[in-house]
Amino acid sequence: MALYVYKFGGTSVGSVERIKAVAKKVKKVHDLGDQIVVVVSAMSGETNRLVALAKEMQPQPNEREMDVLLSTGEQVTVSLLSMALHELGCPACSYTGGQVKILTDSSHTKARIRNIDDTRMRADLSAGKVVVVAGFQGVDENNNITTLGRGGSDTTAVALAAALKADECHIYTDVDGVYTTDPRVEPKARRLDKITFEEMLEMASLGSKVLQIRSVEFAGKYNVALRVLSSFTEGKGTLITYEESQMESALVSGIAFNRDEAKLTITGVPDLPGVAFKILGPIADANIEVDMIIQNIADDATTDFTFTVHRNDYPRAKALLENGCAELGARKVTGDDSIVKVSIVGVGMRSHAGIASTMFKTLAKEGINIKMISTSEIKISVVVDEKYLELAVRALHAAFKLDQEIES
Amino acid sequence: MALYVYKFGGTSVGSVERIKAVAKKVKKVHDLGDQIVVVVSAMSGETNRLVALAKEMQPQPNEREMDVLLSTGEQVTVSLLSMALHELGCPACSYTGGQVKILTDSSHTKARIRNIDDTRMRADLSAGKVVVVAGFQGVDENNNITTLGRGGSDTTAVALAAALKADECHIYTDVDGVYTTDPRVEPKARRLDKITFEEMLEMASLGSKVLQIRSVEFAGKYNVALRVLSSFTEGKGTLITYEESQMESALVSGIAFNRDEAKLTITGVPDLPGVAFKILGPIADANIEVDMIIQNIADDATTDFTFTVHRNDYPRAKALLENGCAELGARKVTGDDSIVKVSIVGVGMRSHAGIASTMFKTLAKEGINIKMISTSEIKISVVVDEKYLELAVRALHAAFKLDQEIES
Repeated sequence: MALYVYKFGGTSVGSVERIKAVAKKVKKVHDLGDQIVVVVSAMSGETNRLVALAKEMQPQPNEREMDVLLSTGEQVTVSLLSMALHELGCPACSYTGGQVKILTDSSHTKARIRNIDDTRMRADLSAGKVVVVAGFQGVDENNNITTLGRGGSDTTAVALAAALKADECHIYTDVDGVYTTDPRVEPKARRLDKITFEEMLEMASLGSKVLQIRSVEFAGKYNVALRVLSSFTEGKGTLITYEESQMESALVSGIAFNRDEAKLTITGVPDLPGVAFKILGPIADANIEVDMIIQNIADDATTDFTFTVHRNDYPRAKALLENGCAELGARKVTGDDSIVKVSIVGVGMRSHAGIASTMFKTLAKEGINIKMISTSEIKISVVVDEKYLELAVRALHAAFKLDQEIES
Repeated sequence: MALYVYKFGGTSVGSVERIKAVAKKVKKVHDLGDQIVVVVSAMSGETNRLVALAKEMQPQPNEREMDVLLSTGEQVTVSLLSMALHELGCPACSYTGGQVKILTDSSHTKARIRNIDDTRMRADLSAGKVVVVAGFQGVDENNNITTLGRGGSDTTAVALAAALKADECHIYTDVDGVYTTDPRVEPKARRLDKITFEEMLEMASLGSKVLQIRSVEFAGKYNVALRVLSSFTEGKGTLITYEESQMESALVSGIAFNRDEAKLTITGVPDLPGVAFKILGPIADANIEVDMIIQNIADDATTDFTFTVHRNDYPRAKALLENGCAELGARKVTGDDSIVKVSIVGVGMRSHAGIASTMFKTLAKEGINIKMISTSEIKISVVVDEKYLELAVRALHAAFKLDQEIES
């Protein structure tokens, strides 16, 4: 007898018919004698509806009250799914985040889970019931309703799987797994059977929006076997797990990319301690998120400093930088908001030299100029002109033979 | 400094604009330095929407899950109202039934309140906050969400007023108070400044649907001064309170009536012990509610037995009665489904003779034949042909001078 946590997102429970389909899928597992906890999001569209109502009341809604409001979305879904299960003759019981004591800190709209009390869920599972839990929500120590922020239902599922020591945590989405790259860019993109947590983190943060990064971190930390599958088609999906020896043969697991980047460079900055903070401090104060940061040592005791931001933040960031330019004693500010970032990701590159040179050679062969390079242990990112995005992704996908099954 | 509990029903919070209007009304009280707890229902239409969703899942929805679902309606309203108050610069905090520990029994969809913990509300009130509580809902001792059934938000308001020893509990509705009778039948109907709990109970159960009977019972039991007012117009409404000496001068407070009645008579029943049970047992088993019951002693050791039911239940009740007729050794079953009940209500009639004879004389003068009579301490009900309803109400309204202010 296995114990599973299944999570279904807003699209998967977006209508009466879809909730009934989820109930059927869940009942199948229950009929096999396995134990199952189901985590659901609000029906698609519901959260937007509630947010619109809130903004009519208060342009910047009180965050505590926003959480009270938004948490109703998942509460509706858990009750409806439980009814659908009852109708199929499958015993089920729904819970809000507060009812299964998903204890969080008090950071409304972006709370973090601190603890989960599994007593009640275990009792229900032992009694042969399906446990249906509202994702995305919890309560703080004063019993105020909190929500976990974007992708919070994934985090709920993983946290429950960790608390219950589930055999696997299944995240059902509208894609059937994690791909070597975006199939809309490279039709030869292949679904991966397995990927490591670290690779998934790099893929997620680089724009492969299958899973929210927090839930992957959480799964890695608590060693939860995480599987991404499609709600709408059959298939085994992609298992996200710890590195195993047989996975070594894949040097590069995937190509991630991010379209909406812009880069800013301040040149001729006196090369003194504290200069990076002086440049990035005002940017951070303005709540602009910085992605890549590169500092090149130049001659004559000055340096050039480059970083990338989301394209939407480009005008604000540029203005801030220009304001500070004179004070820093820097020469000038330049920028480019038509760039993209392309990255190769793979745990295999840790132990294999030559991955970077293969990447650079491939791009050179296609005549693609590299504007920035940044590396970590398991990824290499380059910034290129946005017109080269598709060409770069396809060339790298072919060069690292990602369209071919790995021989094991 | 006074402490008020205000309750606004679904129509009063039925739109963004109406919620904002409620917020303004509440802020006014708060600005005067009074403490205020606001109880709200789901926005009008929301409960129906949720019930329809539930029935698509399960034709007879699981009652525990139904409560989980329906309770979201009020939760949405409390958060939106709190936001509207914040927007007006009025500190507010919303609570679900569970969060202010409205402890109920476990009878899902029709739970009864057992206890309320006022600690958190008192702390907020002392801190100068408006407390906004979801009506209609509570939790049982296992923290399962429960709902209080029809009119439950009125009951929540009265229960909170009792727990907090509020100075007054205001029920805002779409009428501006309790009238001497239905103004649609008698345009001269007059709003009462005061009415006793007992009179209100008789009026409510007889079809004056201003307040749910449970909340009036509750208010009477815990001595909560209850005031019914309009959400949409200014005015003092009607205060429902204990009998005071100055109220004695009103012999009759109001004329209640019920249109949808039907009567059934079984004649020639042997006058033996247990016969009433034999007649009404099968009716009760069929979940048919019986209103008036009258047994006339006839001659030759048999009796005639008459009772009234809701008109919708008439065919079923008649069939049941006809089935049992032979077994009872009764003569025959007759019935009439075009009757109405008209009642005069007033605590004054306790100590004054002659009220009944005035009533009967008035009806006789108009040529209205009385088909049944039933009395309690503070009311006299008669059954008449439905065609006489308006005439009877107007004649009685005039006879008891209900269109005139009481001299005090």
